[in-house]
Amino acid sequence: MAESDVTHAEVEGEDSLAFEDPEYREAVVDLLAVIGYGLISAFERLGEDATLAPHLEAKVQLGRMAAGELGKLGRIEARMAELGSDPFEAMEPFMAAVDAFHANTAPADWYEGLVKAYVGDGLANDFYREIAAYLDAGTRSLVIGTLEDAGYAAFAVAQVRGAIAADPRLGGRLALWGRRLMGEALIQAQRVAAEREGMSSLLAGGIDRPGLDLAALGRMFTRLTERHAERMAELGLDS
Amino acid sequence: MAESDVTHAEVEGEDSLAFEDPEYREAVVDLLAVIGYGLISAFERLGEDATLAPHLEAKVQLGRMAAGELGKLGRIEARMAELGSDPFEAMEPFMAAVDAFHANTAPADWYEGLVKAYVGDGLANDFYREIAAYLDAGTRSLVIGTLEDAGYAAFAVAQVRGAIAADPRLGGRLALWGRRLMGEALIQAQRVAAEREGMSSLLAGGIDRPGLDLAALGRMFTRLTERHAERMAELGLDS
Repeated sequence: MAESDVTHAEVEGEDSLAFEDPEYREAVVDLLAVIGYGLISAFERLGEDATLAPHLEAKVQLGRMAAGELGKLGRIEARMAELGSDPFEAMEPFMAAVDAFHANTAPADWYEGLVKAYVGDGLANDFYREIAAYLDAGTRSLVIGTLEDAGYAAFAVAQVRGAIAADPRLGGRLALWGRRLMGEALIQAQRVAAEREGMSSLLAGGIDRPGLDLAALGRMFTRLTERHAERMAELGLDS
Repeated sequence: MAESDVTHAEVEGEDSLAFEDPEYREAVVDLLAVIGYGLISAFERLGEDATLAPHLEAKVQLGRMAAGELGKLGRIEARMAELGSDPFEAMEPFMAAVDAFHANTAPADWYEGLVKAYVGDGLANDFYREIAAYLDAGTRSLVIGTLEDAGYAAFAVAQVRGAIAADPRLGGRLALWGRRLMGEALIQAQRVAAEREGMSSLLAGGIDRPGLDLAALGRMFTRLTERHAERMAELGLDS
């Protein structure tokens, strides 16, 4: 309650300048729509992956990761409505890219599902955290708020490390899988950026917001790649 | 937090007499195990049904019903552990009956899924509410706490009524579907009661708990059937 009040106050107050620019408003709606549909889609895929769980407790853990994604959606929806947009209509343009990502990275087994949940979630969160720096304060705090991890990452890491210790060949297969996830994420992110100019313009900045030049964009991708490698190492995998 | 503190205090305090009877303790663990696995299973099935949703907002609504089921599981798990039982091990004996219920009532479309979620959840909740009357206060408040509905029932009712208004033949098919759900639920409930004597003994009462004679059991089934009929009527369906 308290948090959403703060967000609302900021929309009305100090951030109203940014939102006077209709392009900025549209770009923020686009961003929230991508994040929102990403959450819905992650909920669905994690729910499917849970059916692959080797035992009941593991199934519940993955189920809780799934439910957590949907739990973050409420505030995104509310903010989109505040900005005068129908949340689910606004998500439609992004469904194809997100769905294609998932269709092209359907896990073949429980461990591929875990690696995807951990690495995919981490990558998306890093990306949103980077973008958040270029947003008005209200939207930034909302976006950062969706990035909380309820501690299920530790579960994924323990499961994957344990399985690799028992069967080292699994590590080679999962390392390749991690590369495929990263590649497919980049392909779909580029597709979204190309189709929605507003999203790219967020990074370019505005009158009262700092922007990003090409060199800075390059450094951002370097950071994303480094953090991906760290996560793979955390799982005991080469990247 | 406050609620789980109360529960814990009650286990330690006034209810300790009931739990001195190892059969009672075992029967309560059985009951919580059935409820717990029922929640996990409902989460999975509702997640699957969500993929049948005609549009994104409906998918999210069903997804939230699914997540809500899993959200109730935490306190059940905690109480089972308090009673000295491994929650997921304790659920194993009940998996076959619950899985059979779902396997025999796989929805053919979105509306069958909604009716199942609404009618099935309602029936299970009524049954647990009836049983709760025969439990110690701490377990009773825990069980009643899992029966909260976050308002998604209204969503199911609106969807189904709208669809029947548009296509009255759907009403006939869904009415038959409701009867099948009720029949299958009774078959599986009877199977559980026959296999787990402890569960039935809960209803028979104990030194410090009131019991249920055959006539009272008959009245309980009458109440369950009446409430089922009310829910079907709520959906605009004959029962």
